[in-house]
Amino acid sequence: MAKDKKMVEDITSMDVDFAQWYTDICKKAELIEYTSVKGCMVIRPYGYAIWEHMQRILDTMFKELGHENVCMPMFIPESLLNKEKDHVEGFAPEVAWVTHGGKEKLEERLCVRPTSETLFCEHYANIIHSYRDLPKLYNQWVSVVRWEKTTRPFLRSREFLWQEGHTIHATAEEAIIETEQMLNVYAKFCEESLAMPVVKGKKTESDKFAGAVSTYAIEALMHDGKALQAGTSHYFGDGFAKAFDITYTDKENKRVYPHQTSWGVTTRLIGAIIMTHGDDSGLVLPPAVAPIQTVIIPIAQHKEGVLEKSAELRDRLAKSFRVKLDDSDNSAGWKFSEYEMKGVPVRLEIGPRDIENNQCVLVTRHDRQKYIVSLDNLEEEIAEKLQMVRDGIYQKALENREKHTYECKTIDEINAKLAENGDGFVKAMWCGDEECEDKVKELTGVGSRCIPAEQDHFSDTCVCCGKKAKHMVYWGKAY
Amino acid sequence: MAKDKKMVEDITSMDVDFAQWYTDICKKAELIEYTSVKGCMVIRPYGYAIWEHMQRILDTMFKELGHENVCMPMFIPESLLNKEKDHVEGFAPEVAWVTHGGKEKLEERLCVRPTSETLFCEHYANIIHSYRDLPKLYNQWVSVVRWEKTTRPFLRSREFLWQEGHTIHATAEEAIIETEQMLNVYAKFCEESLAMPVVKGKKTESDKFAGAVSTYAIEALMHDGKALQAGTSHYFGDGFAKAFDITYTDKENKRVYPHQTSWGVTTRLIGAIIMTHGDDSGLVLPPAVAPIQTVIIPIAQHKEGVLEKSAELRDRLAKSFRVKLDDSDNSAGWKFSEYEMKGVPVRLEIGPRDIENNQCVLVTRHDRQKYIVSLDNLEEEIAEKLQMVRDGIYQKALENREKHTYECKTIDEINAKLAENGDGFVKAMWCGDEECEDKVKELTGVGSRCIPAEQDHFSDTCVCCGKKAKHMVYWGKAY
Repeated sequence: MAKDKKMVEDITSMDVDFAQWYTDICKKAELIEYTSVKGCMVIRPYGYAIWEHMQRILDTMFKELGHENVCMPMFIPESLLNKEKDHVEGFAPEVAWVTHGGKEKLEERLCVRPTSETLFCEHYANIIHSYRDLPKLYNQWVSVVRWEKTTRPFLRSREFLWQEGHTIHATAEEAIIETEQMLNVYAKFCEESLAMPVVKGKKTESDKFAGAVSTYAIEALMHDGKALQAGTSHYFGDGFAKAFDITYTDKENKRVYPHQTSWGVTTRLIGAIIMTHGDDSGLVLPPAVAPIQTVIIPIAQHKEGVLEKSAELRDRLAKSFRVKLDDSDNSAGWKFSEYEMKGVPVRLEIGPRDIENNQCVLVTRHDRQKYIVSLDNLEEEIAEKLQMVRDGIYQKALENREKHTYECKTIDEINAKLAENGDGFVKAMWCGDEECEDKVKELTGVGSRCIPAEQDHFSDTCVCCGKKAKHMVYWGKAY
Repeated sequence: MAKDKKMVEDITSMDVDFAQWYTDICKKAELIEYTSVKGCMVIRPYGYAIWEHMQRILDTMFKELGHENVCMPMFIPESLLNKEKDHVEGFAPEVAWVTHGGKEKLEERLCVRPTSETLFCEHYANIIHSYRDLPKLYNQWVSVVRWEKTTRPFLRSREFLWQEGHTIHATAEEAIIETEQMLNVYAKFCEESLAMPVVKGKKTESDKFAGAVSTYAIEALMHDGKALQAGTSHYFGDGFAKAFDITYTDKENKRVYPHQTSWGVTTRLIGAIIMTHGDDSGLVLPPAVAPIQTVIIPIAQHKEGVLEKSAELRDRLAKSFRVKLDDSDNSAGWKFSEYEMKGVPVRLEIGPRDIENNQCVLVTRHDRQKYIVSLDNLEEEIAEKLQMVRDGIYQKALENREKHTYECKTIDEINAKLAENGDGFVKAMWCGDEECEDKVKELTGVGSRCIPAEQDHFSDTCVCCGKKAKHMVYWGKAY
């Protein structure tokens, strides 16, 4: 029952139907499986391992900056959720409510956390008394629930995994520095570890997190020209502190309100790497988060010595890389397809003649380049090729984004560029009025994504109303 | 505002009120904080860091045995929970029910997972077709919810963190081997990493997991003589497979049912180490899971060179240990108390005279022994002392257990031993009838904990009815 047909036969081409191509990869690469729990999914071992590598890298970055992990309850009493007005308005319509424990009706409904600001605030009020208790730099790795109407694996599901950082500081200045610092951490992680270029910027007023003074985000452009918000960082000022009566005694012995932030990234990042790097053969994984960085495929494995040499190589390489030897009785062709589908960055092929010549064939997933490499310095070769994969897919994603970023001065120009070159980022000037923001979306289909940190004031007038422009804004269709 | 009074003043002595002593430690060592979510708690950074070390060690052990992590939804539809009769009877009375998503009433109620057998079974039915798909060795690190009436931090809370391993195998034999293997993994972890001696055994019929053919457990004896179930491993046979219609095609091309297991440990283990090793000065942590293995306390830190030398030591030791330098302006006495409360295994004191003599004072937490050690080979000294702490607290716990384990041949003897020596493990012979099991509990207060793997057939007759004895059983009062 060895397998030798190609898996890729069943995959929709991304050019034919991008959404179907995406779903096909999620299933065929064994990242997820559907369940009878509507809008929720099983994250399978291969998908979960990607998340574990993301967690490991981010958690190390957080801890190096002094953050500590904690764990809050998964439930929030309704009265606690109601304490901060904007926050409850933003989240109450989409929470799941627990009303019964066993056979008994609860005295007060509990929602399953959609985010945990309220719980952190309650905790801060208990433990913060003096300036000596500040700052608190907390984070938790948990899942949250938001009762979405339409769902898609990783991109939008009723339950998703994330980390939520929550910090509280003596001054507004410190809190703003933290907000910006964590946005930079996310950008660095996306660019270096996920090989995904991002735009850093500030959300407009209409697009802020419920309860925030300001929300910052990183935005990435997917292969189909749509924008994906890949991470957010919020500055809360002292609004939550006032709502939850959190105060501390400062050095002058006065009671004052502290300032807060929160920031998060989710399993959505797995969706982001699928849609940034994938192709019609399947996933293309950035080496830093690839569960298997190098797969060894024996050629003519029934021949004497091939499996032994392959196993020896596996044991040797396992000291430096996440390596797998596939010695199943499936055909080599089947195996090539399988690990292409799974996005393994580097494949090694080793057969009798290779062994004779003390070499193997190395193939890089993203560009299918073949290299004949000596077994003597294989570790160096692989390390170099993994770096080459990361740089290559980053460059390709960057070029795609540049090709699909359109600088426009008028509404007509926006429509023309999108019609001509397909969806992408639109750079256009904006006066700052919400009315114009809405109108741009109505007339062109692209909404504001962010006001980038790097401004490029290429025109003095708003793309919509012609009045004085305040900001250059990235616009796009969003996931 | 430097602190110099002793924290320990506020702690109840374990001999006065063990339950209060336990709660005091949970709060004073900053492991937890209460919340307005009844029966749930915040696990604070110091408590969560202990759990992270437990996770890291266990996760490595699991993966070395071929297990893979996954993530199932946190919700279970009522109809799915109802599929296996014994299972639903065991869990339905204590689950939390989600009835509304946003403003809409759900068509079908969802419970928050109390355990995930039903979700794994649904998934297995989707992905297992042939003998080539077996075994699947899965695990997940999540939280679960059980609507307990009375709760205590770590020991019994409405939400708790755990890992749940779920495996499915071609044959009963393989599944039984897995069940026993994972019990052994837990025992090894508890004994080596937590320095906590455990008894391995099988639960009686009345004490099995809902839906299991057999349940194995490790049982530990706490300082107050009560027993604590520290981990369980269940063999399911093909009962769940039949209820969920999971079949596979075997090598003879027949459709047959696979066999399953599940196994778990929880944040309860944090409670276990508090009650096994703690004393009236606070926590005593096993070095393997201690967030801080060595704390450096500068003496006369205002004197020239003391803080510099302390920081130099910290940087040097950080390469080998989890180390913290406390250079706050609290008094040295306050610091000693604080890190005793937090159970830091090894304390280093370094002052001007120590620096002059190229030495420091090393104090082990569990026995308060002082050593003058040279700075030249400090790493070796600390490594040796950490091992000594682990061995010392293990030995102490073992001696406590032996002192409080009573071999009894009659009900009267049980009552006399408990009255004379306090609570503990009772070893007594049992005929195997549930009636006698209940009667022993009624007459003596101790229930069956497990039928240990290591049998010691010290009498031929049941302690209760006098009929032929089948098993030697450990009995005790349980947390």
